[in-house]
Amino acid sequence: MTLDNIREEINKANTIVILTHETPDGDAIGSSMAMYNSLKQLNKEVDLIIPEYADTFKFLPNSKEIKKEGRKDVYDLAIALDCGDIKRLNGFAKYFEDAKVTINIDHHSSNTMFADYNFVNPDAPATCQILILVLEHLKINITKEIGTCLLTGIITDTGGFKYAATTAETFEFTAWLLGIGVNVADTYKRVLEIKTRSNFELTKIAENRIEFLEEGKISYTYITKEDENRVNAKQGDHEGLVNIGREIKGVEVSVLLREDKQGYKVSLRSNNYVNVADICVLFGGGGHIRAAGCLLHTNLQDAKDKIINEIKKHLR
Amino acid sequence: MTLDNIREEINKANTIVILTHETPDGDAIGSSMAMYNSLKQLNKEVDLIIPEYADTFKFLPNSKEIKKEGRKDVYDLAIALDCGDIKRLNGFAKYFEDAKVTINIDHHSSNTMFADYNFVNPDAPATCQILILVLEHLKINITKEIGTCLLTGIITDTGGFKYAATTAETFEFTAWLLGIGVNVADTYKRVLEIKTRSNFELTKIAENRIEFLEEGKISYTYITKEDENRVNAKQGDHEGLVNIGREIKGVEVSVLLREDKQGYKVSLRSNNYVNVADICVLFGGGGHIRAAGCLLHTNLQDAKDKIINEIKKHLR
Repeated sequence: MTLDNIREEINKANTIVILTHETPDGDAIGSSMAMYNSLKQLNKEVDLIIPEYADTFKFLPNSKEIKKEGRKDVYDLAIALDCGDIKRLNGFAKYFEDAKVTINIDHHSSNTMFADYNFVNPDAPATCQILILVLEHLKINITKEIGTCLLTGIITDTGGFKYAATTAETFEFTAWLLGIGVNVADTYKRVLEIKTRSNFELTKIAENRIEFLEEGKISYTYITKEDENRVNAKQGDHEGLVNIGREIKGVEVSVLLREDKQGYKVSLRSNNYVNVADICVLFGGGGHIRAAGCLLHTNLQDAKDKIINEIKKHLR
Repeated sequence: MTLDNIREEINKANTIVILTHETPDGDAIGSSMAMYNSLKQLNKEVDLIIPEYADTFKFLPNSKEIKKEGRKDVYDLAIALDCGDIKRLNGFAKYFEDAKVTINIDHHSSNTMFADYNFVNPDAPATCQILILVLEHLKINITKEIGTCLLTGIITDTGGFKYAATTAETFEFTAWLLGIGVNVADTYKRVLEIKTRSNFELTKIAENRIEFLEEGKISYTYITKEDENRVNAKQGDHEGLVNIGREIKGVEVSVLLREDKQGYKVSLRSNNYVNVADICVLFGGGGHIRAAGCLLHTNLQDAKDKIINEIKKHLR
């Protein structure tokens, strides 16, 4: 059984590297930090490599120890967390490929099973929720610190316990975390609620531009590079903008276009029936049925036309 | 013990009236509807009287049976839910006062204990959470329908599991509700997430007007009657506007002024240390330490000056 193999390989290894996907969100950082703190508990020589991440997550216990580069010699073991594809390993796939043994723990249904041992559960709402089982199997003492890391991923990827993928285990584990003294409300606030001023300014811009199309079933808005520069946006400041439209009564698909070096990044969210992953796949992207994205190498008007025309075909 | 008295009185009564506070929120309606459906299960002749409430809650099972007026003759028993003071009973205090026996089930710390039997727990995050215990004591079978009503109040009053008052029981009960088939994600969306177009338009207005004062520790905004008329606002459409400021990094106190027939209603929210109830009490209002309100019988500029000057004294 994969879990037994994972335990054996971790027990055997002395030097371990932990990697996660590029532009890491709360589940990527939370699961990586939970694994890092757990392996420290097992007295391993462990490096967690994340070149850049949002300030939001700097409150996580021991996040100061996150490194930008790994060691020169080959690691005994590499563990990828919350990463569906080796190409998304922050540009640090070399540490993974060079390692003697590799493990991949994830919840993306598109996971390419790129490691020696792959523990992938697409039904789990977060990689952090999968880690509960893994850490128990490793006989890790889930401390307040490790619990806070796990909760960070759970809160991020369930949208604060609100998405349909949230399970009874999500709620039971959170109750248990409260019992061991984890400050759930504080973690929630830090991870999901507190907006930077730049994010607030981008929100205003995106809101003021929202158009409702097809009898209000589509909401459309965009932000440009110039907008982001003007409000001094940093990594993560555009997070959540695509949700503005999704939350308005009658909207089935919310569209956000965000200017990128190569064109416009498209983010789609749907509420009830449109499979937005299907739409994004047509344009070389992908994702989940209610949340997906793609990149269009064109100008704003053309990107808007292309994506809206495709969405229209899916509306009832 | 009060719970035994409550059970006895409910068992003895034939005709029962349920009442809740004016401009009812999700906990008021959810707890009232949960009690209504439970008493129906006990084959009681029960009336739930709520003259007006937001469309948001029309999805609650049997909400069509909510009445605007009660019967002419005296009820055997009156139950007030989520109501701290008899004056707030929707203007229907007469049904309560005339009833042969009265019960008051609530979680407001300011509860005036106005009934024959008062079951008040200020530590509970929602009246609906108190009802779990009450309904178990009444041997009610908590069906999916009753569970959905309870969840509505819990989601409303915990802000979707995010406020610090949320307890392990909140999460455990929600896990249990998932187990009996309650659609938690759908309830969350209906209660907390879906905004009306009018609410969205008011949000834009309030956001575009936000001022950051005292080095960003205070956020201030307002909406007028004219704004509400222009966007066709209905009951409940201004809900949540005061939270916009509270969620921005660095803000300690968020202020919303909302024009009213008699002047400006003040809503205050704080994040970490300012006791906004203390501030509102000075102006004849009240509330909780992190969420409070009052009414200022004056014009916009004067209302703003008065409240901001008072808040300044509390900032660190």
